[in-house]
Amino acid sequence: MSALIERFYMAVGSGELGMLHPVPGVTMVAVSAGIKKPGRLDCVVFALAGGSQTAGVFTTNAFCAAPVTLCKTHLKQRAPRYFVINTGNANAGTGKLGMVSAQAVCDAMADAAQVTSAEILPFSTGVIGEQLPYQKITAVLPQALSSLSANAWETVARGIMTTDTRPKASSVQIDIGGQTITITGITKGAGMIKPNMATMLAYVFTDADMAGDALQDCLGQAVNKSFNRITVDSDTSTNDCCMLVATGESGVQVDRSNPVFQDALEKVFLDLAQAIIRDAEGATKFVTIEVVNGADQAECLRLAYTVAESPLVKTALYASDPNWGRILAAAGRAGITDMDLEKVIIHLGEVCIVENGAVSPGYTEAAGQAVMDREEITIRIDLGRGDCCETVWTSDLSHEYVTINAEYRT
Amino acid sequence: MSALIERFYMAVGSGELGMLHPVPGVTMVAVSAGIKKPGRLDCVVFALAGGSQTAGVFTTNAFCAAPVTLCKTHLKQRAPRYFVINTGNANAGTGKLGMVSAQAVCDAMADAAQVTSAEILPFSTGVIGEQLPYQKITAVLPQALSSLSANAWETVARGIMTTDTRPKASSVQIDIGGQTITITGITKGAGMIKPNMATMLAYVFTDADMAGDALQDCLGQAVNKSFNRITVDSDTSTNDCCMLVATGESGVQVDRSNPVFQDALEKVFLDLAQAIIRDAEGATKFVTIEVVNGADQAECLRLAYTVAESPLVKTALYASDPNWGRILAAAGRAGITDMDLEKVIIHLGEVCIVENGAVSPGYTEAAGQAVMDREEITIRIDLGRGDCCETVWTSDLSHEYVTINAEYRT
Repeated sequence: MSALIERFYMAVGSGELGMLHPVPGVTMVAVSAGIKKPGRLDCVVFALAGGSQTAGVFTTNAFCAAPVTLCKTHLKQRAPRYFVINTGNANAGTGKLGMVSAQAVCDAMADAAQVTSAEILPFSTGVIGEQLPYQKITAVLPQALSSLSANAWETVARGIMTTDTRPKASSVQIDIGGQTITITGITKGAGMIKPNMATMLAYVFTDADMAGDALQDCLGQAVNKSFNRITVDSDTSTNDCCMLVATGESGVQVDRSNPVFQDALEKVFLDLAQAIIRDAEGATKFVTIEVVNGADQAECLRLAYTVAESPLVKTALYASDPNWGRILAAAGRAGITDMDLEKVIIHLGEVCIVENGAVSPGYTEAAGQAVMDREEITIRIDLGRGDCCETVWTSDLSHEYVTINAEYRT
Repeated sequence: MSALIERFYMAVGSGELGMLHPVPGVTMVAVSAGIKKPGRLDCVVFALAGGSQTAGVFTTNAFCAAPVTLCKTHLKQRAPRYFVINTGNANAGTGKLGMVSAQAVCDAMADAAQVTSAEILPFSTGVIGEQLPYQKITAVLPQALSSLSANAWETVARGIMTTDTRPKASSVQIDIGGQTITITGITKGAGMIKPNMATMLAYVFTDADMAGDALQDCLGQAVNKSFNRITVDSDTSTNDCCMLVATGESGVQVDRSNPVFQDALEKVFLDLAQAIIRDAEGATKFVTIEVVNGADQAECLRLAYTVAESPLVKTALYASDPNWGRILAAAGRAGITDMDLEKVIIHLGEVCIVENGAVSPGYTEAAGQAVMDREEITIRIDLGRGDCCETVWTSDLSHEYVTINAEYRT
């Protein structure tokens, strides 16, 4: 019942990872603990240099997983030195025994690495509600510790995958005061994706030298423009965690208001968040929903998510059907107060489909079809009543989504 | 592009209509206007006796359809004498020209029946965003008018179907003070179903003698326990209308606080609302979500709808997979403040799956599987923090749902 199915269909776009720069002060390894099928990478360890600062955001799901609870506790107690991540089992909905298992993983890592247990952060992802076979993880930690390397980004990105079809990573280098700063991160996630303060799992590292509270601010800002703007299926996971580490090894001090650093950080976060959508379960389309000229952020987001999560909009996208009436209907039920229908303008790609409360006079089915046939589609809704704009990214709803989620545990 | 596909798969349950009693003062007919495929019933007329009172509730979708707008206007002006309902075209997202078309239908019916245009209520359902070919409707109205009968419930229930696989109707007779009162109604709907003050289309008639404001109160109460408690896909339609007519022909006066009448009315409404869920697009399961012992109605409904609309819960139901972790995850993201996880108890049918924040000690996969294998499944979530209870009904998310909605216009 616990083996995960493989996904063989295409995701959207090439998935090319590009150059992934090492981050001084960070080493990593992926090993096989046998939680999933034998031989498959299912356990990842990151080691952080002493003096590293770590910031984190975590799921808001009330039934948050045992490792998430322990992460938050440890993060308050000590600066982390190791992350231990397993796939194949989420250790969520596992009650007190789940906490014992998460603690056992930390204790074993602490023993092997000669640090304290509070310096270990545990992460789990996979099936909810089954007890974690933690002995399989603790057994491989000494071997993992002896195999750490500075440049195994693609391997560890593979090591945290569940129903993902491909690894997800992003990396940039920037110049601050004539010195080079590196930011490199990995993420995983394809279903149960509507992060709320975090995503399924994401780990981003930089060698900038930053104070802990500044790092947390930078993380919060970046997450709000990336992982907090994507939805595959509106389901917020019990295990979402997003971690940002600054090792300081570059020797370059960066404060929270450095625009060059923040822009670079947000680029990496957006790359990672969009990579999840491109590899969303069953995705055949990468869809951008832009709401512009709204009265405030709340109404822009409510409208964008209502359209992005409408099963009827998502199935029309899957069918490449320019059935714009479904976009109109979804917009109409988003609960925007006193919306002036005459002012609303809706574009599908570059094609105007709705204006003055009805189909645009210049609209043709052929023009709509040409946009819908693309792999990447933007739906832009102009409310014409303010100057607030928000963007969210989503995927379509396909037969493959149903197949994957009807067969996940079989 | 406008032909509707037929649905050949099974709905849930037998769909037996039972005895449908005539309502004195109400006659009806279904004809073919050729809006959909030639020869298919796509236009229904109801005629109401003079002196009938009519109450209505309508969609809250901001982009409400032209006929809905005109209905609301006419209902304020005069007591209706005729309902004219077409399928195959929703006349929604059609702007000013859509209003002209809806008015033309009313004018033609008024001419043919020798009443005023304000005494006609128009209703449309079908594809959004195409102009209504109203001449096809006006051409058949004289023929329709000459063919009215008192007992064509099943035929008119078929005449308002779109992607429905079967007609939906309910009828009861009650005794009030030794005299018989009849309540009979029909409805349609299978997708774009999350009514909000109404459903796709529903028409309920009684021969009780009631004041207009009392009738509206009775309707509001009944809708809030039936159509406002169902969801197929979270998409509120642009065309939802629910009408309740009291012809008074029984001569029995009923006031708003008559419990026998209200109970009977609510039974008919619940039958009709549940019939929509049993025939939901792609449905293989009829699912009841009960939230009990919540602090207030709002949190009970939020939780029930979050579980009912979770794509991951719905695909697990389709697969008959007792993957209760998905129910737990959905409950956890419903935004219930200060939920005490230790007090939450979740049952799948009669089987306790979650208690004390983890899987129930007595739970077995076999017991969960036995419940999931059924066609009708109840998920009960006990919050253990109050005395408010709410129930909503939903369907599963199947391959057939995706097929229907990916192919609707092709």
